[in-house]
Amino acid sequence: MPVPSRLLVNTGDGKGKSSAAFGVMGRAWARGWTVLVVQFLKSGTWKVGERKLAEHLGIEFYALGDGFTWESTDLERTAELGREAWAFAAERLASGAYDLVILDELTYPVRYGWVSEDAVVEALRSRPSRTNVIVTGRGAPEGVVELADTVTEMRKVKHAYDQGIRARKGIEY
Amino acid sequence: MPVPSRLLVNTGDGKGKSSAAFGVMGRAWARGWTVLVVQFLKSGTWKVGERKLAEHLGIEFYALGDGFTWESTDLERTAELGREAWAFAAERLASGAYDLVILDELTYPVRYGWVSEDAVVEALRSRPSRTNVIVTGRGAPEGVVELADTVTEMRKVKHAYDQGIRARKGIEY
Repeated sequence: MPVPSRLLVNTGDGKGKSSAAFGVMGRAWARGWTVLVVQFLKSGTWKVGERKLAEHLGIEFYALGDGFTWESTDLERTAELGREAWAFAAERLASGAYDLVILDELTYPVRYGWVSEDAVVEALRSRPSRTNVIVTGRGAPEGVVELADTVTEMRKVKHAYDQGIRARKGIEY
Repeated sequence: MPVPSRLLVNTGDGKGKSSAAFGVMGRAWARGWTVLVVQFLKSGTWKVGERKLAEHLGIEFYALGDGFTWESTDLERTAELGREAWAFAAERLASGAYDLVILDELTYPVRYGWVSEDAVVEALRSRPSRTNVIVTGRGAPEGVVELADTVTEMRKVKHAYDQGIRARKGIEY
């Protein structure tokens, strides 16, 4: 019997949800896995370190968001981008081409109502048996948590931002 | 005024403490930082994916432990290795040669009493101003938590191991 693929969820208001997913990306690369990363909030104009690393390692990496919602000047356009990003991710997820798919910050398009929770749960449930998935973001939808085999809440005990220390290149992005 | 270096702690009983540190390792590499990784539990015989990635990226990586305590057949030797690993890490930390030092699973030698909490806190407090540090492991010592600017508790909501699913190459190591 084949080893079942895994569905991991990193949620909560603390640091490390995406970082942990990118740590696993590195392990997957080390094992020769094919990996796909889709970012749902960040846009392609963000020059994030994780993208640079992914490109260096030959990992497919798509930042399909529109920056951050609270910075959006056209929410309908932002929502449309979110729906398109999900359609893209769902098609790739179903393709069977990947050992690991990272859906970074997928929880936000669901929470904002741009993408239905049922569609996400169904796409995750019916994924090819070889494809492990990591979903990150605050407020993970209940149906996704239920389906997942490993769910971690990153709980903020203390955060530099609260002390006025800004996000730092090399650490946060 | 130079940007102060950061001290991050990833603790708790959930998944992602070390993964998140290795995600930041990738970001740091992308920014051209010099990085050192010291693992306090794993030994050099572990062929972990994160080490393979670090070596590929030209990052210094030392696994100086003795496997896992509960597998040790000579606890005094294991303790001695823990003390030696800390002496090595403390010397490198003080050297000023690194932008980021990852002290993976450092909490265990402290909790087991092999290394004093005061020595660790003092080494972290007096580190060179350029050197950011990430400490991982369950049960982070109080003094380290107090000194840190960002502390995240990885809280286990659900874990595959509890359902009898074993650690998987490419995901957990």
